[in-house]
Amino acid sequence: MSTEAFLLTFAVVLAVGRIGSEVAERLGQPAVLGELLGGVIIGVGALRWLNPSDPIFHTLAEVGVLLLLFEVGLECDSEALLRSGGPALWVACAGVVLPMALGYGVSVALGLAPLTALFVGAALTATSVGLTARVFSDLGRLRSREATIVLGAAVADDVIGLILLAVVGGLASAAGATMGSVGKLLAIALLFLVGGLLIGAKAAPIVMSLAARMRSRGAIGTAAVVFCLLMATAAGKAELAPIVGAFAAGLVLARTEHSLHIERAIKPVADLFIPVFFVCMGAATDLSRVSPFTSVGRSTLLLASLLLIVAVVGKVLGGLTVPCRGLNRWVVGVGMIPRGEVGLIFANLGLAHKILNPAEYAAVVAVVLGTTLLTPPFLRRLLSSQPSADPEADAEEDLAPFSEALSGAVEARPVGAEA
Amino acid sequence: MSTEAFLLTFAVVLAVGRIGSEVAERLGQPAVLGELLGGVIIGVGALRWLNPSDPIFHTLAEVGVLLLLFEVGLECDSEALLRSGGPALWVACAGVVLPMALGYGVSVALGLAPLTALFVGAALTATSVGLTARVFSDLGRLRSREATIVLGAAVADDVIGLILLAVVGGLASAAGATMGSVGKLLAIALLFLVGGLLIGAKAAPIVMSLAARMRSRGAIGTAAVVFCLLMATAAGKAELAPIVGAFAAGLVLARTEHSLHIERAIKPVADLFIPVFFVCMGAATDLSRVSPFTSVGRSTLLLASLLLIVAVVGKVLGGLTVPCRGLNRWVVGVGMIPRGEVGLIFANLGLAHKILNPAEYAAVVAVVLGTTLLTPPFLRRLLSSQPSADPEADAEEDLAPFSEALSGAVEARPVGAEA
Repeated sequence: MSTEAFLLTFAVVLAVGRIGSEVAERLGQPAVLGELLGGVIIGVGALRWLNPSDPIFHTLAEVGVLLLLFEVGLECDSEALLRSGGPALWVACAGVVLPMALGYGVSVALGLAPLTALFVGAALTATSVGLTARVFSDLGRLRSREATIVLGAAVADDVIGLILLAVVGGLASAAGATMGSVGKLLAIALLFLVGGLLIGAKAAPIVMSLAARMRSRGAIGTAAVVFCLLMATAAGKAELAPIVGAFAAGLVLARTEHSLHIERAIKPVADLFIPVFFVCMGAATDLSRVSPFTSVGRSTLLLASLLLIVAVVGKVLGGLTVPCRGLNRWVVGVGMIPRGEVGLIFANLGLAHKILNPAEYAAVVAVVLGTTLLTPPFLRRLLSSQPSADPEADAEEDLAPFSEALSGAVEARPVGAEA
Repeated sequence: MSTEAFLLTFAVVLAVGRIGSEVAERLGQPAVLGELLGGVIIGVGALRWLNPSDPIFHTLAEVGVLLLLFEVGLECDSEALLRSGGPALWVACAGVVLPMALGYGVSVALGLAPLTALFVGAALTATSVGLTARVFSDLGRLRSREATIVLGAAVADDVIGLILLAVVGGLASAAGATMGSVGKLLAIALLFLVGGLLIGAKAAPIVMSLAARMRSRGAIGTAAVVFCLLMATAAGKAELAPIVGAFAAGLVLARTEHSLHIERAIKPVADLFIPVFFVCMGAATDLSRVSPFTSVGRSTLLLASLLLIVAVVGKVLGGLTVPCRGLNRWVVGVGMIPRGEVGLIFANLGLAHKILNPAEYAAVVAVVLGTTLLTPPFLRRLLSSQPSADPEADAEEDLAPFSEALSGAVEARPVGAEA
């Protein structure tokens, strides 16, 4: 891609994300929905202005999702997260077992081979923590009890998804999956989560106080980003998703005395790059694969529709059964619905090993997209019927429909750098 | 490059840039010198941790230099720039003719072929506006009369460099350079500069007031970046350097009522990405090519040394002869010394057409590097002997050596997002 082509495409991506989020907010929907749909329009399924697998945009999107999880970590109350550990683990486990079992069942019922059905089931397990966090953030509910449980569950999910990936990946390859290889992965992942947080918590205050004493401009922001990138790299080395590391970095830095400075320095950068991730996510979607106008499209559509139902039901049931009082279980269940990167990794692995054919692959991708598009309006509806956790969030008056939820969103996300 | 490798390298680049700029400032040098030297250490000539021609880092560096010129444009007084048009044009023309003639003479004297000598001379013509702007900005003198003339001259330089490139590029190719093709390029470039500024000046207030009415977070910053990217693309379409478009975008937006909001939204992003450009610039430098320990290295070193002398003398003479009263002509001359991208483009073109051999190519690259490394300390020295243009810039006390210039830098570059 030439420099010029990059500059123009980058301008289009930023403009589409901004216009999409603005339209969505004016219609009383979370901003992220507009960014996703804007991406669908300029992506591989329609205008083809943006190829999200271009390495440069792939990287910028990665930077965007890292900054998102870093910001979420910064705003997260890590003690509340620990207190929610029990319920979160329940939601994570139920939300893995149910979609996997139901997805396997549906696939076998439709005549898919057992190993294919296993892949399809596994692809339905992991929640996309990025999308869920963004919806809660758009609606100004990131610090609610429900959001805390969902975030904890989504991180736990990622660890479980990693183990599942090792198991089914082993089944797909000649080597097979052994208890030893699976146990090793689990041990490394837990070691990172515990060790990384402990080391990070020791290192963070030292790094940040050094940065605070620097004379050069913007040192705090740069130091925070470097810390976030290093934690993301460490997570990657532990075979975890880098976003888990970015989230951990945010959690750790939130406890330093510089957390407000960091938030202020990161916000304008995050405002610019987070939408790139969601526009690229939308752009990867080719809706023509599930067209009802061809015979292949119709059978893909049937498989995708049934899988979408079990994907939703499985996660919602997991949320509804959470053993915890005084919270809106529907919000937890619906908050767990969105699938993302991990589902796509399973689908790609299946395709590469010829365990999924292109139609089955397209069905899994369509489910990921469907959950992603369904969740924002669904969750907004649920939250607008519930009083906001932030008392001041309801103060702002708003002329848009569904004004309660929207005013929450506007209140909780001030006009950032312009404020 | 894998995601993990990218994350780690990005962290290293940011950390090296930050540490380099901090060390340089503590030693009383402009921050950019530390970033360049940090880049040299991790680059192709030494540790090889960063390959600056990797497409992703190349792109991030491009984003960095665009943001730099955009910021410079935002802070620039466009009326002062216009008023300095006459002297700037003189400096630009003298600074093209003298280095080209002297470079040609030295090359022919050392036995190079006439066409090769012409390429070498042409490669010495264009000032790197990015580096010069950064040094003035580091030292808190961006709004001085001298800086305004240098900026104007460096932009004019770019247009002249473009024409020269067409001429020598034509001579190198079979087609040859015709008056028509050269005239066409010149017309397009001038059309962009005048038309782009006029259209941009009309469009900017409309775009920004739309953005200001948006509800979604960070709209002003995103709109400004989109505007900058579009102007950069337009400059590229006119065969000008994209940075000229970014500079024009900054000039135009500086005249809207939102200029302060834009500056505040852009600063944290610029703080992050500008050092990436300079670290990558340093990283592209392979000092072993001009080693005095091999015979090829020695003759390259001789050629490079002589060219460096004429590159410096040519630009300084251009500055010293500027027909304008009441300014420090040495500052103008030295401010024009740094060469950059355009010189490298000439060198690459010459290498590709086998007009330069690898040793001659290395000599040109070494001259670009030499001017880049020489200018910051040289300019700082000159400016520290002159009272600062900003009265308050001298107020701050500082314990570092050469405290006058440094305190100017600290004052003019407040701790950005942390302030």
